Amino acid sequence: MAGSKTQPGIPNVPERLCALPLALSMGDPAGIGPEIIAKAWRARVARAIPPFYVIGVQDALHAVDIDLPCQVIARPGDALAVFDTALPIMEIPIETCPSPGRPTSDGAKMAREAIALGTRQALRGKAAALVTAPIHKAGLYGTGFDFKGHTDYLAHLCDQDESDAVMLLVGGGIRVAPLTIHIALKDVPKAVTKDAILRTAKIMLRDLETRFGFSNPRLAITGLNPHAGEDGSMGLEEQEHIIPAILELQNAGHQVSGPHPADTLFSDAARMGYDAALAMYHDQALIPVKTLDFSAGVNTTLGLKIVRTSPDHGTAFDIAGQDMADPESLIQALFLAARLAD
Amino acid sequence: MAGSKTQPGIPNVPERLCALPLALSMGDPAGIGPEIIAKAWRARVARAIPPFYVIGVQDALHAVDIDLPCQVIARPGDALAVFDTALPIMEIPIETCPSPGRPTSDGAKMAREAIALGTRQALRGKAAALVTAPIHKAGLYGTGFDFKGHTDYLAHLCDQDESDAVMLLVGGGIRVAPLTIHIALKDVPKAVTKDAILRTAKIMLRDLETRFGFSNPRLAITGLNPHAGEDGSMGLEEQEHIIPAILELQNAGHQVSGPHPADTLFSDAARMGYDAALAMYHDQALIPVKTLDFSAGVNTTLGLKIVRTSPDHGTAFDIAGQDMADPESLIQALFLAARLAD
Repeated sequence: MAGSKTQPGIPNVPERLCALPLALSMGDPAGIGPEIIAKAWRARVARAIPPFYVIGVQDALHAVDIDLPCQVIARPGDALAVFDTALPIMEIPIETCPSPGRPTSDGAKMAREAIALGTRQALRGKAAALVTAPIHKAGLYGTGFDFKGHTDYLAHLCDQDESDAVMLLVGGGIRVAPLTIHIALKDVPKAVTKDAILRTAKIMLRDLETRFGFSNPRLAITGLNPHAGEDGSMGLEEQEHIIPAILELQNAGHQVSGPHPADTLFSDAARMGYDAALAMYHDQALIPVKTLDFSAGVNTTLGLKIVRTSPDHGTAFDIAGQDMADPESLIQALFLAARLAD
Repeated sequence: MAGSKTQPGIPNVPERLCALPLALSMGDPAGIGPEIIAKAWRARVARAIPPFYVIGVQDALHAVDIDLPCQVIARPGDALAVFDTALPIMEIPIETCPSPGRPTSDGAKMAREAIALGTRQALRGKAAALVTAPIHKAGLYGTGFDFKGHTDYLAHLCDQDESDAVMLLVGGGIRVAPLTIHIALKDVPKAVTKDAILRTAKIMLRDLETRFGFSNPRLAITGLNPHAGEDGSMGLEEQEHIIPAILELQNAGHQVSGPHPADTLFSDAARMGYDAALAMYHDQALIPVKTLDFSAGVNTTLGLKIVRTSPDHGTAFDIAGQDMADPESLIQALFLAARLAD
């Protein structure tokens, strides 16, 4: 266990997963982030959680778990020796820590700085990967934050173009990326272009191979319309954009199939036929994952220079500080980060 | 058991379900209809299938199950005495019965006449309900069939407007109706109107009460856009059409909620909060049902003067006659028809 001084005995965690700790940005300190982080650390032995350190505010953790043992660390590598007995934390200075459920602009700024620091540490090889707890976008906009959310901010921090980053959802036995994400449904059809499909599919195919370890991965691409347009009788996007993209990918030697009707692509049997799916829009990708696996779905961003995962839910201010938050999605995000970084 | 002479002993079928038999239209005789019908009849004891009679061609049944005992009946009521020992059939004349997998226009015409006869018998109270096996729409269009499919043809036969009929999918613990069905995705946003939502919701609320037996049923309505538009930041259809419709329904005393983000509405936990959902378009409704319950989903048409159900798949000419077809969706359609007609 390179870099680790003690803890030979975390059960079930292969030694290689512990070479570097995971960086975990706290997210908005007034959201459920601190609570699920504390719960995930407390489950470290029972669930064999890979070692991580939090970047955030210690007070926010103690506001929801007063007895939580925390230890401030100076370097990411110190987390490995600490993790067994205390939650390692790198503190981000903040004037006043917000109370659970009561977000402040100071809290939003802190959340942003935590992401920036964690990204730098992952880029420099000090952290194995970055896991991000939920931020509050509206709160960030008020602080002059000029990004739509985590993904484009991370691309900026990695000195990459936003279009290099692809959001992949993992849950319920499904890996699926939406081609378009947070846009109105009426704007989806014109955003379904051959170029966008080619760019996204190539990032997926590369990362499925390099990070997920599939050799010659199988990618299934959905249609946009009901029954994938039924040969053009219900929409032409399949014929004009999706099929040409699929043919080009196939001609380049990739195992790409489609366009598949989205309603029949996510059954148990259909899922045996591919390693990941590319859906055309938000609900087409999110409905199957969240229907099958509501509490344990995970996001990961493909195409970045770093490995990044996150739980698949928001700050949930309405239940913050009430000991009601479920840490499962964060725990799965930690597992996935460790696996992808391996 | 009114109308029944023998068979006191079909296990597990409540007596009242047997007052009238179900009419089952064969669908295209070259599709998998005959095979799944034969399999459903053979499972009558093991699965406690409610008594039904087929309207179609005996030769098509024998082409896939040569030993199947069939008995021609003159009146629907005769089916009850026959069902135990033979599959009751009302024959539709046909010149030549097509072979499995090789559809003909004679076969398509026969399928159409079977629907018309079954509908008349259900309307006249001779059959408890109509269950329809899959037809081949393209084949029907070639015979001068002037309808889009089963639903508008049935509305016509019942002397009702097509807009009176609402397709409801039942499967995987979900009841969900799509507001719009077989149209291109780009045409969906403008079809999402307050009037259409009100009309569809009222039909659903009424039939959930009168047919499904829910007193004051709870209806959940989805948004159109990701996260139900997030207060207008991703599309305005929620604010302009969906919310006004919901408010009007609530003011009329109905238990209607929404607009709900579609991706989080179909998890196990979320489904506890409503009896049926109204989704805005095909994939939003079909993805959750087919993801959870690929082989046993059922369609039913609400708003008609008769009870009508159907399996949730097509003619599957490619596997017809190969003993590969799964009768489960048809069996579930028979169960649901018996329950709704009760």
